[in-house]
Amino acid sequence: MSRHPLLDQEARSKVEQIVNGISQAITAHRLAAGGKLPSIRQLAKECGMSPFTVSEAYEQLVQRGWISAKPASGFYVSRRNPPMPRSAPALSLLPLDADRLLTGIYDQDSHGMMAGCGWLPEDWYDEEALIRILRRTAREQTISLRYGQPKGLLALREYLCGQLHDQGMAAGVDQIITTQGATHALELICSVLRVAGQAVLVDDPGYCNLLSSLTYQGCRLHGVTWTEEGPDLTILETLMATHRPRVFFTNPWQQNPTGASYSPRVAHEVLRLAQQYDVMIVEDNVSADLLEVPANTLAAMDGLNRVLYLSSYSKSLSPSLRVGYIAAPLQWAESIMRVKMLHGLTTPVLNEQLVLALCNDGKRKRHNQRLKHNIQDATTKAINYFEMLGWEVFSPTAKGMFIWARPTVSQDSLLRQAQMAGIFLAPGKLFRPDAQETDWLRFNSAYLDNEVFRQFLQGLNQK
Amino acid sequence: MSRHPLLDQEARSKVEQIVNGISQAITAHRLAAGGKLPSIRQLAKECGMSPFTVSEAYEQLVQRGWISAKPASGFYVSRRNPPMPRSAPALSLLPLDADRLLTGIYDQDSHGMMAGCGWLPEDWYDEEALIRILRRTAREQTISLRYGQPKGLLALREYLCGQLHDQGMAAGVDQIITTQGATHALELICSVLRVAGQAVLVDDPGYCNLLSSLTYQGCRLHGVTWTEEGPDLTILETLMATHRPRVFFTNPWQQNPTGASYSPRVAHEVLRLAQQYDVMIVEDNVSADLLEVPANTLAAMDGLNRVLYLSSYSKSLSPSLRVGYIAAPLQWAESIMRVKMLHGLTTPVLNEQLVLALCNDGKRKRHNQRLKHNIQDATTKAINYFEMLGWEVFSPTAKGMFIWARPTVSQDSLLRQAQMAGIFLAPGKLFRPDAQETDWLRFNSAYLDNEVFRQFLQGLNQK
Repeated sequence: MSRHPLLDQEARSKVEQIVNGISQAITAHRLAAGGKLPSIRQLAKECGMSPFTVSEAYEQLVQRGWISAKPASGFYVSRRNPPMPRSAPALSLLPLDADRLLTGIYDQDSHGMMAGCGWLPEDWYDEEALIRILRRTAREQTISLRYGQPKGLLALREYLCGQLHDQGMAAGVDQIITTQGATHALELICSVLRVAGQAVLVDDPGYCNLLSSLTYQGCRLHGVTWTEEGPDLTILETLMATHRPRVFFTNPWQQNPTGASYSPRVAHEVLRLAQQYDVMIVEDNVSADLLEVPANTLAAMDGLNRVLYLSSYSKSLSPSLRVGYIAAPLQWAESIMRVKMLHGLTTPVLNEQLVLALCNDGKRKRHNQRLKHNIQDATTKAINYFEMLGWEVFSPTAKGMFIWARPTVSQDSLLRQAQMAGIFLAPGKLFRPDAQETDWLRFNSAYLDNEVFRQFLQGLNQK
Repeated sequence: MSRHPLLDQEARSKVEQIVNGISQAITAHRLAAGGKLPSIRQLAKECGMSPFTVSEAYEQLVQRGWISAKPASGFYVSRRNPPMPRSAPALSLLPLDADRLLTGIYDQDSHGMMAGCGWLPEDWYDEEALIRILRRTAREQTISLRYGQPKGLLALREYLCGQLHDQGMAAGVDQIITTQGATHALELICSVLRVAGQAVLVDDPGYCNLLSSLTYQGCRLHGVTWTEEGPDLTILETLMATHRPRVFFTNPWQQNPTGASYSPRVAHEVLRLAQQYDVMIVEDNVSADLLEVPANTLAAMDGLNRVLYLSSYSKSLSPSLRVGYIAAPLQWAESIMRVKMLHGLTTPVLNEQLVLALCNDGKRKRHNQRLKHNIQDATTKAINYFEMLGWEVFSPTAKGMFIWARPTVSQDSLLRQAQMAGIFLAPGKLFRPDAQETDWLRFNSAYLDNEVFRQFLQGLNQK
């Protein structure tokens, strides 16, 4: 590939090569104000890059006011330089598909079957328990009208200490900070670790929202390829040695999207490498309450030293309450609390009271067992069905809600047919750093055990 | 002032001059690993800077691992270069006083009388209404167990449209995004405007949490001095012309901390200058529901073109529910929604349902009238009392909860005597960019109308 005049070869990511190259060309008047830019496909071809990379770079340039988009025409150099961001047209900040996964599917009236989404059907949760507890809260008049404590409701943090202690993690009550779910926890951690613009390691494939958020913060993402027993250790060590990242974001247990979990050997080795190369680990255990047996977490093995641990009640109790938490080494917990306050003051007391009451509810244990059983049953059935069709399943022994599978049909064709059938699928590239292409997709087993979906699969046109 | 060898004269803020200068000196081995740095006071004196500036710079250097603090000894160059952030000791990210205001006073069991805090006493809110509505919600079983919509509960946004429309602001339902209060709204706006590291204009004095957050993001803060009728227009124009900021953050109505509001002429001129210099305005109207009559907002005058508007229910209904909102030009609303999702997915549905029900409650109007009357009454009494003592009051006609006053006693002496009496006061420097010293303080009238406080004032030792 020859050196393209619109690329900055010094930049470290492909997106930055384009963004810096084009903004430099505009500053140096090599691109004239009002002039038309190459189309996304054209530049992608010329540079040997993916159209997604070019599209992302163009959107950043639009967002920063260097260029503007004319509908049904193309991209043009802005006439003012550098214009204010308010000149930006209403383009999305993210590649279109990731954007759909980020916001589109949350508009839950706008779609059909959610075979690709990240949460359980509403009626799998215990609505009756929530209503009962709301009624009791109203009756007992134990409602606070004040701000909560900066680290979150003390009684909930005390409960969490007990839970974590039972799992071998000696976290004091001051080491726990409640959040508005796992995604908020990740945002606070990113802010306090000051990852913006830095090289970071992520699972490949990994949690789509985290990847989008890190990209939005200008991070250079290096994906650690997953095997059935967790990250590939050779790749992990090479990336640590080459890029000297300060942090590795990983989701070791019932991983999103593969459904696989770290083996004990991989867990031990990942920690050892993190120590050797002085890398912090952010352990996202969002599905903690859905695991068959509690995981032997990295945070527990590490004694909460270089691991920041986070989890949430969104997957096991209900995503509507928006309660998650972080457990961190004390020095980090103090900083995380401050950033939590700077970014939005305290989390709502009522929601944390309700979550605590749900956790302590007499029927919780049985309901949680049933929930896990339902998920496992649906997952086993779906995996069997996929394998019967000749599809490849990444983790045939997965027991969580996520299945990472490679169909026999081409992905383009599959997505087109699914869209026509009103079925929402999640293409695998959304779970890869820089949205790299892949044949795999993520499925959520909770939505697959029905005749509509099976008939859709049986009737698939293989072309 | 001579050129100090530890300053980088190229850097744009004083804090950056120190941070860059010292890190460069370490990289170039002009400062040896393990060597001791000048004390905060010493360096401040040598450079002619405030100790707060040096303290902030040192804390950033500690946070980034360049230097480390030894208790009761001082600051030392780290032995590893550049070390990982996890080597940082548990220092706060902010000057100590701001930190206390940010987190300390939210630990509400740890202090006495809250004469300096930013919210109303718990028993001024309508607990009875909240309990009644919780009970009804439980009875009617209208509880969602799903994620909310990305922009927030549609019914609440529809209600807000009507409210804003009545105040002359034609915001469509798609232009409104709910948030977890006003501080969260400001964080989302900062992120989407990409202010990190940029020059921004702020009210001087202004909202303490916003100033801390902007400083944490590495912004260069330029304070626009307030008069009794809003920002000083000459200073505003000079700052706009000199620094070409992209955004002015302002709180025009019952301003925190002065209690003053824009005059109609200032409102018009601020908008005109913003147009002339192409500056975005972030209009924080957090006390909207506590105004005597609704304000003629900048957003309404501007037709939601270059103004991003935000408000909250924390001051009028209760801070515990954590519900606020943004109204923005459509193109910005879309981007804000995406950042909201990236940083924490949706806001909790239950809280937005409760707020909507409280807004529509039959007794709301009367309760709100009583609340406003109580505040106004307390403020008038406190202002009279301060003036009787010979204190200067910034806005003698203020009707909101905040009073900005300059005592006859020296501030150091006042703060010391207050601390001994178990009274929490908010020194004025916490509300100034870069925590510049000032003789003024912020008071919250809701906590002042009692014998304990009056006796404290009467008994003040004037030295």
